[in-house]
Amino acid sequence: MEKSDIGLIGLAVMGENLVLNMESKGFRVSVYNRTVEKVDKFVQGRGKDKNIFGARSLEEFVSSLKSPRKVFLMVKAGQAVDDFIEKLIPVLDPGDVIIDGGNTHFPDTARRTAYVESKGLLYIGTGVSGGEEGALKGPSMMPGGSPAAWPLVKPIFQGICAKVENGQPCCDWVGEGGAGHFVKMVHNGIEYGDIQLICECYHIMKELLGMSNEEMHETFAEWNKGDLDSYLVEITRDILAKKDEDGNYVLDYILDTAGQKGTGKWTAISALDAGVPLTLIGESVFARCLSAQKEERVAASKILQGPAPAKFTGDRKAFLEDLRKALFAAKVVSYAQGYALMKAAAKEYGWNLNYGGIALMWRGGCIIRSVFLGKIKEAFDNNPEIANILLDPYFSGKLAEAQSGWRNVLAQAIVNGVPAPCLSAALEYYDGYRCERLPANLLQAQRDFFGAHTYERTDMPRGQFFHTNWTGHGGDTVAGTYIA
Amino acid sequence: MEKSDIGLIGLAVMGENLVLNMESKGFRVSVYNRTVEKVDKFVQGRGKDKNIFGARSLEEFVSSLKSPRKVFLMVKAGQAVDDFIEKLIPVLDPGDVIIDGGNTHFPDTARRTAYVESKGLLYIGTGVSGGEEGALKGPSMMPGGSPAAWPLVKPIFQGICAKVENGQPCCDWVGEGGAGHFVKMVHNGIEYGDIQLICECYHIMKELLGMSNEEMHETFAEWNKGDLDSYLVEITRDILAKKDEDGNYVLDYILDTAGQKGTGKWTAISALDAGVPLTLIGESVFARCLSAQKEERVAASKILQGPAPAKFTGDRKAFLEDLRKALFAAKVVSYAQGYALMKAAAKEYGWNLNYGGIALMWRGGCIIRSVFLGKIKEAFDNNPEIANILLDPYFSGKLAEAQSGWRNVLAQAIVNGVPAPCLSAALEYYDGYRCERLPANLLQAQRDFFGAHTYERTDMPRGQFFHTNWTGHGGDTVAGTYIA
Repeated sequence: MEKSDIGLIGLAVMGENLVLNMESKGFRVSVYNRTVEKVDKFVQGRGKDKNIFGARSLEEFVSSLKSPRKVFLMVKAGQAVDDFIEKLIPVLDPGDVIIDGGNTHFPDTARRTAYVESKGLLYIGTGVSGGEEGALKGPSMMPGGSPAAWPLVKPIFQGICAKVENGQPCCDWVGEGGAGHFVKMVHNGIEYGDIQLICECYHIMKELLGMSNEEMHETFAEWNKGDLDSYLVEITRDILAKKDEDGNYVLDYILDTAGQKGTGKWTAISALDAGVPLTLIGESVFARCLSAQKEERVAASKILQGPAPAKFTGDRKAFLEDLRKALFAAKVVSYAQGYALMKAAAKEYGWNLNYGGIALMWRGGCIIRSVFLGKIKEAFDNNPEIANILLDPYFSGKLAEAQSGWRNVLAQAIVNGVPAPCLSAALEYYDGYRCERLPANLLQAQRDFFGAHTYERTDMPRGQFFHTNWTGHGGDTVAGTYIA
Repeated sequence: MEKSDIGLIGLAVMGENLVLNMESKGFRVSVYNRTVEKVDKFVQGRGKDKNIFGARSLEEFVSSLKSPRKVFLMVKAGQAVDDFIEKLIPVLDPGDVIIDGGNTHFPDTARRTAYVESKGLLYIGTGVSGGEEGALKGPSMMPGGSPAAWPLVKPIFQGICAKVENGQPCCDWVGEGGAGHFVKMVHNGIEYGDIQLICECYHIMKELLGMSNEEMHETFAEWNKGDLDSYLVEITRDILAKKDEDGNYVLDYILDTAGQKGTGKWTAISALDAGVPLTLIGESVFARCLSAQKEERVAASKILQGPAPAKFTGDRKAFLEDLRKALFAAKVVSYAQGYALMKAAAKEYGWNLNYGGIALMWRGGCIIRSVFLGKIKEAFDNNPEIANILLDPYFSGKLAEAQSGWRNVLAQAIVNGVPAPCLSAALEYYDGYRCERLPANLLQAQRDFFGAHTYERTDMPRGQFFHTNWTGHGGDTVAGTYIA
């Protein structure tokens, strides 16, 4: 029997679609599932008459694969991955590759890479983005793990992934251990931020400008032709036009409560751990939490006062252009923060991340795909060592052009009581980041006052610490171990 | 030999001061330290001629204590606590109490409580706030752990803690397991927020109004007489007046970089885990991170454009009153968020927290002590079940009165490029929380569009989930396990 190029375990929709994608690119694929009926159903259904082998046991599955074997797990993130690793280790041979394509938290991938390598096998944890359609037609893929595994899977991964200009694949090697899943996590965090920013623009258009769904549809259609050309703006355009069976807009029937439990939260926690200000994504996660408090908000809306209902009297067209610039500028800040987090993680974990390559992986196939990511790629092409993408000439120029409109939009939203936490967090970061002198001198003075924590001085070299006896009776002792 | 009421291990400044405090309230105290020379130094120095016994071995220390023994650890949070617990278990008797007064992360305290109880002993993890001076003269104390231990230590804890009106002690039982250290963590997070808010007011006064240190000193002195009467405003007043030896203000010499690694970060992470929007404290932690990026900021200040330098032309006195209201309102939001986090934690961990009692514990002794906390106590006295303190009539009234000025301050700061991330995050939360309908309907539409995640509808009961075939070719299948 002809052996397969790769095997996949886990026939939920994403798994099935990846199999069909690989098969369509000329690879023979073996499939297996814990519930064996799913294998039969798939090979007699969507997988019928294709170059696919349905294995009815793990042994049959493993012996159907070309050596070195490549086993792609698309099972639920968590214990199921560990369980399959344990089952696979005894039946695989040295040099075989186990691949986890689920939404795994990166420390788990780091741990599993080390464990699987200790058994003589190779491991890959790969981000796969683009949803079910992406899995079928070309996802963005972000693989990390054992570097020696990459050449073995590269033809398949780069064969099935999304392609952008000149056929460039939206998949490349990210780095050792958990690097691939880390980058996928940041991708998802950025997705949280992008979505929330669009929601805030929608809210401002609706509440402050009183625009209809049709008008907003046209505006997003227009925006999608320029700098903001992206999948999320495109689907927003389409959502705003979609009518329900009764002829009313579907959007107006949808409840305003969102869940969050996953990768957005992980991204914010990673940033807190790394000490990297990731304010926009943080606010976007909290915005979802607040949206979930629907009943509390309904009650609060009857008690807490706002300004008189918003009534916009200015030049609507000019304001919409300001809003477009605000969205673009905030998006630049969000990506700058996300890249700063990746830089910090790379330093901490010893990854040699290819930042331009990551922008290219996200350029197509995934939810945050956009023309904009091509500009980020260019920024890193121009200066691979750039400290922060805000400082890239293209982006700093765009921000300079946008900032006045951005300020105008936010001032109007604030005065009129329309919340825009992410547009606002982005501007606060922009103004803080370009601040040569922040008020943290007062913060340090306070900490030295109440806890003798000492401070550095502007007139002395860094690394020397001073204490002031602020009250005249506190003494000159500096803080020991205990900090209140 | 007369036996001691309590023993303390760990003679750093905080430990020494707690010993002197206990002794001054009539308790006999045994002391011990891993480096025994510190014991000698203390009993012959600050502890001389006092009712203090210096033990030269752990055995001597333990046998010097009245039964049931109370052993207060003031050692470095982390491994040192576990090490002493291991040393103490074999030499203590059933019913004896081990107390950890360090800045321990609450899950460690939960773990240690269960462990120590399994050995037949009792355990307390207590927050101690107020710095070195507080430890000596009366700290705020937040004990949790084994409920049976509380009656045993209550006379000592309530004897040495800070007192407010009518002699009410700033210490009461918080709850089981890690509850005490959890509340201490939230206290510290709130401290981060309070400090950052004051820094932002200082920054706005300085950059936007061009005020001198002397003028700011006078303003904070004035503010300290009203609603904002608090320790942190008081020391800000004093800091602004403090001159260095050369006659210039100390504050102007202090470098604007702050560290963060501890409890503020834990608080924000807890909020992300609990799904509670704790935006202000989150921004305050990130503001410290940004302040630490001094060199990057200096470089960015030369590249990133802002508006023309701020020049305030309006009514300065009115603006300062708006700023005072903005600070007050933002502070209300921060405490509302902190209390919401405690409510969520209490639910998760099964703690029966006394929210008014916590306000009272913070009312004196600790860094965030203020008149304001008395109002929070009153809010819970009036309605122990209040969902959010923003909804308390006193606070909602104050917010209604403040909101117009708050909006004015932020609009001016934004237009003039002065960052105020926490004042801003607070207003965004206020406007979001009082929003009956947030734009999360669009968010849900997007997630259903690209991932078939389904949504709830405003015209249908909660708990029913719907999917729209947005493109006409996506099919009606809803998302399975895999989410991009």
